[in-house]
Amino acid sequence: MAIVVSALKEADGENRVAMTPDIVSRLVKSNYEVLIEQGAGVNAFYPDDAYTQAGAKVVDRNEAISQASIIAMIDKPSAATIQQLKAGQAIIGLLAPLTDQDTVKALAEKKVSALAFELLPRTVSRAQTMDVLSSQSSVAGYKAALLAADRFSRYFPMMITAAGTAKPAKVLVLGTGVAGLQAIGTAKRLGAVVSGYDVRPASRGEVESLGATFLTTSVSGAGEGGYARQLTPEETQQQQDELAGFIAENNVIITTAQVPGRKPPLLVTQKSVDEAKPGTIFVDLAASELGGNVAGSKPATTVTTDAGAQIIGAGDMASQLPSAASDMFAKNVQAVITYITKDDQLTLDVDDDVIGELLATKDGEIISNRLRGAMKLP
Amino acid sequence: MAIVVSALKEADGENRVAMTPDIVSRLVKSNYEVLIEQGAGVNAFYPDDAYTQAGAKVVDRNEAISQASIIAMIDKPSAATIQQLKAGQAIIGLLAPLTDQDTVKALAEKKVSALAFELLPRTVSRAQTMDVLSSQSSVAGYKAALLAADRFSRYFPMMITAAGTAKPAKVLVLGTGVAGLQAIGTAKRLGAVVSGYDVRPASRGEVESLGATFLTTSVSGAGEGGYARQLTPEETQQQQDELAGFIAENNVIITTAQVPGRKPPLLVTQKSVDEAKPGTIFVDLAASELGGNVAGSKPATTVTTDAGAQIIGAGDMASQLPSAASDMFAKNVQAVITYITKDDQLTLDVDDDVIGELLATKDGEIISNRLRGAMKLP
Repeated sequence: MAIVVSALKEADGENRVAMTPDIVSRLVKSNYEVLIEQGAGVNAFYPDDAYTQAGAKVVDRNEAISQASIIAMIDKPSAATIQQLKAGQAIIGLLAPLTDQDTVKALAEKKVSALAFELLPRTVSRAQTMDVLSSQSSVAGYKAALLAADRFSRYFPMMITAAGTAKPAKVLVLGTGVAGLQAIGTAKRLGAVVSGYDVRPASRGEVESLGATFLTTSVSGAGEGGYARQLTPEETQQQQDELAGFIAENNVIITTAQVPGRKPPLLVTQKSVDEAKPGTIFVDLAASELGGNVAGSKPATTVTTDAGAQIIGAGDMASQLPSAASDMFAKNVQAVITYITKDDQLTLDVDDDVIGELLATKDGEIISNRLRGAMKLP
Repeated sequence: MAIVVSALKEADGENRVAMTPDIVSRLVKSNYEVLIEQGAGVNAFYPDDAYTQAGAKVVDRNEAISQASIIAMIDKPSAATIQQLKAGQAIIGLLAPLTDQDTVKALAEKKVSALAFELLPRTVSRAQTMDVLSSQSSVAGYKAALLAADRFSRYFPMMITAAGTAKPAKVLVLGTGVAGLQAIGTAKRLGAVVSGYDVRPASRGEVESLGATFLTTSVSGAGEGGYARQLTPEETQQQQDELAGFIAENNVIITTAQVPGRKPPLLVTQKSVDEAKPGTIFVDLAASELGGNVAGSKPATTVTTDAGAQIIGAGDMASQLPSAASDMFAKNVQAVITYITKDDQLTLDVDDDVIGELLATKDGEIISNRLRGAMKLP
């Protein structure tokens, strides 16, 4: 019996889909059966008939949930969806285990095997092809730079014309992880003068290799797993003060500093926002319900200051480039599916150093050590 | 007595302003007096105090109109504004003389000297610094490519990542005048695979020098003044049929074909629109009340087809990059002002080969030969 994999339609506001026609046809060739909920791909420009042609069965939500051994989603399931799940089913997605313990507990109670991309051990090279945080950050960084260029009232490149010369835009990217580097690369492509800031001094090489200027403050904060560590309040204050000078010199500021499961650091203070010149664009990739990097940013909303600066709450950038983001996400999902199945069987080896971390819950237990730590379980 | 120049606030929906703080300070240094209507620059991110600092007086509309020898505007004045004008005043702007004869006649009746940028002889090299059509087309082409990239659901560049490779977008630009070439250049900067089509075979060199592929059909239509000539119905049919093949192969289609004072040619038929794949983006720079290059395009509106293609009516692209567009426009205006004034006097020499064409009306007469021809005056 072939393993049945299904992809569900996401909640309103999420344009991505966890499975694409291309991945469907690959899975079908490898003897999986694939169910797609009606309309799941429409917002990512994958109509139902593209899935049918690829070999999937397009079904209603109940069937997609009840018939599947493995369910792929972008975002965490709603409480109602969790109630429909059955013991032994596996669910894969961005399940928000570090910030939404209620969902984790509900999945554990249902004895569902929940594989949460947030828990993927990013330093294990074998797990790279499953790294949704990286693939989606890459999309988000590109899209953030494009959105900034589209909202900015001037050119990004220098333009020399019969009516005179327009100066290039000055773009500052705060936080130079995957998203930041993509934003830098895209702004450079467009001809802007770009600088990148990070608390991790090791980022200098990557930033400079893209042709951008590396900026740093007297605060250094290299942390574990490639992330920045949390700064002390004194360090934060000092960082904000020093950043204010850089911010005031730029036309476009893109912020990307996120710490998994915690409130994002405030990098752009209210004072910097208030003093920003008319036409300044802030794009806050960290904007979420937990807060953001820019004072006053609101998720999925643009706030215009009295002086005419715009603060774009851009936590949903991957969803705004939905086809490309879904392609990458679906490839990551496929890598996980291939990894956790063998001879038409679901094989979840909790001793494997990838699966043992990726698995938030299994058989009613919280498996991931990182999650157990975050939830203060023994 | 210094010559008094004023700039008015434009109608709703127009973000540009005909005079910028930079040009104000240049004019003031050259002994002009400059009046700016309150709030005229706000949508272009030039607040009133920036004009005051540059040496202008910020005044109400009545004063800006009544005190000026020369009034600069982006778009044609309303009937109400024309009623406030006085004999001998000069007005400079995109006055739409070829498409709106009522405005021209009203300006003539008022014995106003109306300088219409649409009438500028574009082949006289001395007039290049006054060429608003060129400067604004350049802005529009850049902005159109950016907007297309922002609306497109995938990457423009090729992306090679741990989760696989994303193919570059295929972008087709129809019409390779100033706007088309800028759109090509911008899409190329972003890493797309770009081709450009024009009925004028002479465009090949410019398109290829930007690294794009030049496409042509069996219809050739080189015309006067660098514009394409109007095609016969048979030629149009043939062109549309041949273009349909190119269009179907591309993800993004930007159309820029305009013929001054006439309905734009239909380049993308309803059939091509209907057959476009989900996610296809059409950006129609010719979209106007007269029609557009893409079947079903609507000015300043995005139409989504049943199959999920978007048709963006993008006739207002320059207004959507308002600071850069205003900078260029104001430089063009300054060039005209400098050209038509001498020793603090307005000097409108109808025998000058630039002014004699640029002048739509003077002393109650229609001056421009081109306009007289279009209006079928002897």
